[in-house]
Amino acid sequence: MQKPSLPRGTRDFGPEQMSKRLFLLETIRQTFRRYGFQPIETPTLENLSVLMGKYGEEGDQLLFKVLNSGDFAKDLTETDWQENARKLTLKISEKGLRYDLTVPFARYVVMNRHALTMPFKRYQIQPVWRADRPQKGRYREFVQCDADVVGTDSLLCEAEIVLMLHESLRNLGIQDFTVKINNRKILTGIAEVVGAAGQEGLLAIAIDKLDKIGKEKVVEELKQRGFSDESIDKLEPMFQFPDQAQAAFDQLKSWLAPSEVGLKGVAELEEVWQLIAQYGLNDARMQLDVTLARGLSYYTGAIFEVKANGVQIGSISGGGRYDNLTGAFGMPGLSGVGISLGVDRIYDVMEELNLFPDTGLQSTQVLVVHLDTEGRSLGLPLLSQLRAQNIPAEAYPDSAKVKKQLDYANAKSIPYVVLIGSEELQTGLLGLKNMVTGQQEKLTADEIVARLKDEVSK
Amino acid sequence: MQKPSLPRGTRDFGPEQMSKRLFLLETIRQTFRRYGFQPIETPTLENLSVLMGKYGEEGDQLLFKVLNSGDFAKDLTETDWQENARKLTLKISEKGLRYDLTVPFARYVVMNRHALTMPFKRYQIQPVWRADRPQKGRYREFVQCDADVVGTDSLLCEAEIVLMLHESLRNLGIQDFTVKINNRKILTGIAEVVGAAGQEGLLAIAIDKLDKIGKEKVVEELKQRGFSDESIDKLEPMFQFPDQAQAAFDQLKSWLAPSEVGLKGVAELEEVWQLIAQYGLNDARMQLDVTLARGLSYYTGAIFEVKANGVQIGSISGGGRYDNLTGAFGMPGLSGVGISLGVDRIYDVMEELNLFPDTGLQSTQVLVVHLDTEGRSLGLPLLSQLRAQNIPAEAYPDSAKVKKQLDYANAKSIPYVVLIGSEELQTGLLGLKNMVTGQQEKLTADEIVARLKDEVSK
Repeated sequence: MQKPSLPRGTRDFGPEQMSKRLFLLETIRQTFRRYGFQPIETPTLENLSVLMGKYGEEGDQLLFKVLNSGDFAKDLTETDWQENARKLTLKISEKGLRYDLTVPFARYVVMNRHALTMPFKRYQIQPVWRADRPQKGRYREFVQCDADVVGTDSLLCEAEIVLMLHESLRNLGIQDFTVKINNRKILTGIAEVVGAAGQEGLLAIAIDKLDKIGKEKVVEELKQRGFSDESIDKLEPMFQFPDQAQAAFDQLKSWLAPSEVGLKGVAELEEVWQLIAQYGLNDARMQLDVTLARGLSYYTGAIFEVKANGVQIGSISGGGRYDNLTGAFGMPGLSGVGISLGVDRIYDVMEELNLFPDTGLQSTQVLVVHLDTEGRSLGLPLLSQLRAQNIPAEAYPDSAKVKKQLDYANAKSIPYVVLIGSEELQTGLLGLKNMVTGQQEKLTADEIVARLKDEVSK
Repeated sequence: MQKPSLPRGTRDFGPEQMSKRLFLLETIRQTFRRYGFQPIETPTLENLSVLMGKYGEEGDQLLFKVLNSGDFAKDLTETDWQENARKLTLKISEKGLRYDLTVPFARYVVMNRHALTMPFKRYQIQPVWRADRPQKGRYREFVQCDADVVGTDSLLCEAEIVLMLHESLRNLGIQDFTVKINNRKILTGIAEVVGAAGQEGLLAIAIDKLDKIGKEKVVEELKQRGFSDESIDKLEPMFQFPDQAQAAFDQLKSWLAPSEVGLKGVAELEEVWQLIAQYGLNDARMQLDVTLARGLSYYTGAIFEVKANGVQIGSISGGGRYDNLTGAFGMPGLSGVGISLGVDRIYDVMEELNLFPDTGLQSTQVLVVHLDTEGRSLGLPLLSQLRAQNIPAEAYPDSAKVKKQLDYANAKSIPYVVLIGSEELQTGLLGLKNMVTGQQEKLTADEIVARLKDEVSK
């Protein structure tokens, strides 16, 4: 007899987890909607020609590839078999699983360029797959949640992204967080003023680790990467920035005075700060962090990262501005800015801080308990009445002892039970029991509906 | 330059389609919830050992298989390569994509048997993948929506499934539909009384086509399949059943009088009809259809199928009762009953009947139009006020001519526009324009928020 199992790095979500996940995703969805972002979805399967070469050598290897249908091996020669796995793969597989939401979005924009109204604001909440080594908190199948605006370089979009991050997290109940912000141009400027123009990539790789390994080791790494002692000395201001934004801007402006691009980066961030103040967000949890690089990747302007404070977990969101989303698909020069929320990490943060609402959002609110078919007959129209008032309700389907039916209610965390026994059949008054307080009352069916309509959260 | 494309049989969903799909799925989700069904989700990737052999020979071929990661070919010998594709597949692939929601659900139940409260009522809305030949209305990636109760053989569950189908479709606006019902035991009984005991499978294959090919051709096929002329003569009542349920039950009871199992099937369906009447569903759109078989597959009791009338499309839902969901995974004897809604077909029905709500459920309700940064500064706090009232709102991010901004509003079907020009800056009265009626008013920011709070559907 076969004992079934799950593939490594994948998970089932049972009713309780699903209820919480739906709450989380719906909250984000509604927040994004309030900011004018519209939903799209792209297929799980993408052509490998779309996916390959977009995520670097390592990414190509981490793509899940789907075997061609039918007799996939029939046209292969012996030399094909002897080639390395990578070359052979492309001969027996032409499709792969979505690896992120950015490349499919770029493909979507290019394929629909003539139909889309620019600026185009889309959000997308879908699973992605990576053949990574599974470990705690890292899965092979996990949900990403991206929002991007493309077709404009207005800094208003950066400001709105920051606002939307604030509102999303607060709507989820997460109050203590920090939105770190940097700008690629500032990193470029820093490389210039320390005499390492064009080296901001190498600089970023080392500096990115400051939080984890400390200043001393970062300096060591910079030396290994070929930065001169003089350059490293000149980097000193990077390690001691004031917390207060205006002071930080002032320090940057004097440090980066010789660099035009550096000053442009500072000016951009200052404008973002000003815009956010204009929106009236007075307690913005923003921090200028000149060490933030997020591997730079394709960012050309603002760089974002969000940390949940007081919880031992990596960043829960990241993003930035890019200048060339769709270049690989023959549509150069499309600027945009976007953010990705780490749904699984946010879930973990909310679990740890106990932020999910108590009320079983997706679960039954009333169980009708009956002792015989006569009692059940009385209960069925009550079920219809309750459901018509949008109160989730069910009857225990079998004839069973009251205890068994109450156990069922407790196991499903059903807060109210209606008891219909022989006495109830005679009097027409049904027993309404609050399973939390234990309180019990005798009411008519109509009274029960009226009572629960008010009390049950919907 | 690479021109990107989508894999055959897959689709992107743009904002308008997504908005409709979210409405459709959320309506079904809320209805299922009212009946006490709880959500679960299972991974896209399943081990092939779980999937293979569960869908027949053809199904095994239609499974999308995922190539093993890394150097998948390194342990293969020359004879492996020369084997047929099927054998070779299992050596280079151990995972596949979810093919339906039933087998993953069975696996889930078996793996969580000790934690689940029985009866267990779950619903599941997720995509599935089949390497079928794509054609109109048939995709390689499509969403299924299943609801099942397992762990009880109470006929109350059949009744609730019928009620839930009614409520789901009505909540979507679909009024004209028929829920066809049959029972496997009735088909078994028919085979017995026509002298073809045990042949209900063959009988069903032919009879299932009655709608499509007509009685004459069904009779011909029955002959080819070895049914005697005498048996076929005795089948005559099957082709002329009264529409009215009680008359149909009476006819069946006399026809199937010699068959114990046949009479049991009739009794079961009669009870389902009675239960539904007890719930108070007076205008049930149910039809007893003794020719309904749905390939029989694993059904052992009730068989359901739903047709949308007046639309040229196949069934939009199907399901039934089974006795052995989890037998293949070493947990025999688990009875259950379930239904699957065809989301894509229901979408097509709703499109054809124009049933989706007009109001862009997922889209922006207000665009703030400004002519310069001064006007924009005045608009930003208004955006915050609107969003705080759950009114989706955005500003055009760039400085652009009014016409361009109004074009943007029209392209996104944004119903209201707030105009902030030089006059508005002086007077503090902003222009609120209804983009549908063209009506325009001068109001303060607070008045605009109050007005839209009432008017904008949320």
